[in-house]
Amino acid sequence: MKVGFIGLGNMGMPMARNVLAAGHQVRAYNRTAARAHELAREGAEVASSPAEAAKDAEVVVTMLSDDAALEQVVFGPEGILEAMPAGAVHLSMSTIGVATARRAAQAHAQRGQGYVGAPVFGRPDAAAARSMWIVASGAPEHIERCRPLLEAMGAGFTDAGPDPAAAHLVKIAGNMLISAAIEAVGEAIALVRRHDVDPRLFMEVVAERVFRSPIYANYGRIALEGRFQPAGFKLRHGLKDVKLALQAGEEKALALPVASLVRDRFLTALSCGWGDDDWASIMRLNEPGATLAGRP
Amino acid sequence: MKVGFIGLGNMGMPMARNVLAAGHQVRAYNRTAARAHELAREGAEVASSPAEAAKDAEVVVTMLSDDAALEQVVFGPEGILEAMPAGAVHLSMSTIGVATARRAAQAHAQRGQGYVGAPVFGRPDAAAARSMWIVASGAPEHIERCRPLLEAMGAGFTDAGPDPAAAHLVKIAGNMLISAAIEAVGEAIALVRRHDVDPRLFMEVVAERVFRSPIYANYGRIALEGRFQPAGFKLRHGLKDVKLALQAGEEKALALPVASLVRDRFLTALSCGWGDDDWASIMRLNEPGATLAGRP
Amino acid sequence: MKVGFIGLGNMGMPMARNVLAAGHQVRAYNRTAARAHELAREGAEVASSPAEAAKDAEVVVTMLSDDAALEQVVFGPEGILEAMPAGAVHLSMSTIGVATARRAAQAHAQRGQGYVGAPVFGRPDAAAARSMWIVASGAPEHIERCRPLLEAMGAGFTDAGPDPAAAHLVKIAGNMLISAAIEAVGEAIALVRRHDVDPRLFMEVVAERVFRSPIYANYGRIALEGRFQPAGFKLRHGLKDVKLALQAGEEKALALPVASLVRDRFLTALSCGWGDDDWASIMRLNEPGATLAGRP
Amino acid sequence: MKVGFIGLGNMGMPMARNVLAAGHQVRAYNRTAARAHELAREGAEVASSPAEAAKDAEVVVTMLSDDAALEQVVFGPEGILEAMPAGAVHLSMSTIGVATARRAAQAHAQRGQGYVGAPVFGRPDAAAARSMWIVASGAPEHIERCRPLLEAMGAGFTDAGPDPAAAHLVKIAGNMLISAAIEAVGEAIALVRRHDVDPRLFMEVVAERVFRSPIYANYGRIALEGRFQPAGFKLRHGLKDVKLALQAGEEKALALPVASLVRDRFLTALSCGWGDDDWASIMRLNEPGATLAGRP
Repeated sequence: MKVGFIGLGNMGMPMARNVLAAGHQVRAYNRTAARAHELAREGAEVASSPAEAAKDAEVVVTMLSDDAALEQVVFGPEGILEAMPAGAVHLSMSTIGVATARRAAQAHAQRGQGYVGAPVFGRPDAAAARSMWIVASGAPEHIERCRPLLEAMGAGFTDAGPDPAAAHLVKIAGNMLISAAIEAVGEAIALVRRHDVDPRLFMEVVAERVFRSPIYANYGRIALEGRFQPAGFKLRHGLKDVKLALQAGEEKALALPVASLVRDRFLTALSCGWGDDDWASIMRLNEPGATLAGRP
Repeated sequence: MKVGFIGLGNMGMPMARNVLAAGHQVRAYNRTAARAHELAREGAEVASSPAEAAKDAEVVVTMLSDDAALEQVVFGPEGILEAMPAGAVHLSMSTIGVATARRAAQAHAQRGQGYVGAPVFGRPDAAAARSMWIVASGAPEHIERCRPLLEAMGAGFTDAGPDPAAAHLVKIAGNMLISAAIEAVGEAIALVRRHDVDPRLFMEVVAERVFRSPIYANYGRIALEGRFQPAGFKLRHGLKDVKLALQAGEEKALALPVASLVRDRFLTALSCGWGDDDWASIMRLNEPGATLAGRP
Repeated sequence: MKVGFIGLGNMGMPMARNVLAAGHQVRAYNRTAARAHELAREGAEVASSPAEAAKDAEVVVTMLSDDAALEQVVFGPEGILEAMPAGAVHLSMSTIGVATARRAAQAHAQRGQGYVGAPVFGRPDAAAARSMWIVASGAPEHIERCRPLLEAMGAGFTDAGPDPAAAHLVKIAGNMLISAAIEAVGEAIALVRRHDVDPRLFMEVVAERVFRSPIYANYGRIALEGRFQPAGFKLRHGLKDVKLALQAGEEKALALPVASLVRDRFLTALSCGWGDDDWASIMRLNEPGATLAGRP
Repeated sequence: MKVGFIGLGNMGMPMARNVLAAGHQVRAYNRTAARAHELAREGAEVASSPAEAAKDAEVVVTMLSDDAALEQVVFGPEGILEAMPAGAVHLSMSTIGVATARRAAQAHAQRGQGYVGAPVFGRPDAAAARSMWIVASGAPEHIERCRPLLEAMGAGFTDAGPDPAAAHLVKIAGNMLISAAIEAVGEAIALVRRHDVDPRLFMEVVAERVFRSPIYANYGRIALEGRFQPAGFKLRHGLKDVKLALQAGEEKALALPVASLVRDRFLTALSCGWGDDDWASIMRLNEPGATLAGRP
């Protein structure tokens, strides 16, 4: 299949590699061209603009950092909206807001193009290992068209129905759950530590016996090893995501007190200069000795 | 082994049954005698006071609702402290506070008795199925003495070291994590529902693909089926437990904002008259149409 | 002075009346024309667009409900930006965000026009009574130009320096303080009520003896009389304002936990259908018997 | 009048002086005897125990730091309960919890003694200047008996009815309001500061024009001058008081989210080592550069 691939960050790069490895033709665009050239050594073609990546493509995959980046790539000058052939599908895998997804889907529909929302659960290692999970929503025929790519990139996918924004909402709400779990684990570890109980033992019980969850195991490990760098998922992206949840709640007059709390913790951590560290860095706010550093 | 068993509630009853089934002699006491007589039909002896259950016992198991109940059973008139033989061990499986555990352990030690803190993770069905997990702490020889009982009641146990309060703290911090997860799941389900996304599909993704955790699966199911009665674990006990966490934090000048939030949610739910419903009832506070009912 | 006056809501109308009463020429525009015609009976000229109100004006006063409304009036078709004479000053009295204020100020400056941020503290009765207080910021000569109008509308004003956004920030932070006080008073009254202590007596002590503040007296009175309608200041505008505070905090990576809490309370109250009631309606969330009603 | 006076701390000392100055006979007791001897130079008699201070007294004034101290003074060995003559009145001016007040009042009643709850609003300077305000509750004849003392110590008092705990609840709820205002002022000042708006100007507007309240003026001043030492009111006492509010709420299943937030802030500040600084120190948690220091 002819695939345009836009966004070669920590997640996009291994995902694009997996698409290449599955035998598809990839024309890749990245704002910083160096990463596209890196992919070229593995067989990708390098595009000099989103439009060039989208031209002649059957599917255009986007994996970008936020709503603004996606809007630029879709609606901006040399954007994909004008360049994609009728009948092509935009496979939109970034974590973006509901309103942005709806707007992009509509604009594509008006040009006879498809839009499939397909955000992913998993960190860069899962992307590389093809073990991440994908939630996809959009018209059934468009999802079907993207199936080979979804299968090339993840361990499988859940079809979240025809509303193109639904998959994005599932992702946003899911990330809200993960960030709430991180915050709670951070507090719990601080509590046992201050009482001189071994936090390793505590996390073993919690992760393996109580929750029996790799998420708890993973963030427990990060906390215990103090391994907040390099970021698997950057704190500033975590902040962005919890803001998307708050915004989605606000649209329906729904208060999300856990999300409000997590947002405040992300902001304080950002103010500590931890914006590019792992989002689990909010755990450090419980440490005696933590320093609330200067303005970011 | 000669076992005194005190407290035959939703948890204590199936646990006592498993002790009986493993071939031990059980002398049981419950405040409401009827439940002790029920157990008598399965071979237990009925005691008319905690002291009577403790007399001649090698191990006295307690499974009570809160710190006050345990203090009554240990220090009260006809309490176990005066009745237990020297050398016997109090296997204290209730979820109680750190300070109470320390006080009981000291009093037992002064009489040459042992104290093992051994709270459990699991709801009544897990107690019945012997699939609950136990965390035990205390002097190694006392834990060793209790091993046959621990193995008769749970799927296994984690040794949390010699501090008798350590196991209780692990339990308190663990319950704090579960209640935070419940609150977060409730908010997330409310969010996807209000956006007309299928919450079943959302919880499938979250429980099976993202967290891969039976805890998330369980509370997702409760939320989706609105099955808040009968309680697996009563809301008023959940409130008690999060207060134990806050108190343990306070002793070390540690703020636990997630626990503060969950406490407030439990209180509001209590004010709605849901104190004897499942602690997952805090999820209902997100429902439009929920009624904040009269004083409890 | 020739004055364009745009926005004749609960606040704008009495303010415009006071400008007229001080002997200035007023050309007024309101989205709903009826209110402009009402003012015409008191000597104002009616404009059919913001542009028409701004043409030939020395000062254009705007008193609008939110950032979107102000942007429409400034930058929209038939907006004031294109219509105002060079040298004229935009006296911007709405409660708007820092970024919007900065953008408007710059656009005016590029056309040789002035911008003075001048939001007000006070409810409609204070606007009518000329007892509201104004905070003004902008170039000294522009503030000076507006002085007669500021004096015609308020009890006085504080000069907050040359940054046109400064006055808006003071207003936003000030409203955050008022909303925090409302929330706290609501909780305190609920607390004394549930303990059968007379809340009237409590508020007398608090308002007259402890805080000695008309703000506490006012919101105490509203709470005690349950007088949440008609709104002195609508809850949906309160929500907007606390969001402006959160956004201003976010720009500087500053968590504002009180504002987060108040935002959540406003959202829940909105979900109860109280969006057009007084913002003090969040106090009702503490009442036993309050109903969390349907989607707004 | 013959007066026993127990508790000569920052507040008690100036209050006792005013009682002396009004011409009453004072027999004073303080845990640290030095302060009692200081007062002896002004005409007081020194007692070597609470009981000795209470013997023969018509009214026994207590001004102590917390519930535990009061319980010790009332019920402890050499406590006032056994020593007070029948018909004498305990004028209990400490900020204590509702349950403690009820218990003390009952015990006194059983011995034919009176109990008047009479906590005060005001810091040490107000105590010295006799400008603090008192809220008193208890049997009318007992309040009447205390009137000369109440008038000697404060600017006046509010009669909160016959329930001896009512005055204490008013005090607790009032302190909750003040601490909420401190937290909100701290956040607001941080917000304007980070945007380079002059916080002095902001507080002038807030304190003099919007709230017109000495409380806001006072805490604004403390924030702007960074004058957190010496404490007017110690942070650890502020923490105690907000816990009394949370406990009073809990008794009636009432969530107090503002109080929960303030409690968490006090705890974090305590962990920073600020327990003996002014309770306004929570404002420093918003400062970039603040250090979360070691265990207290």
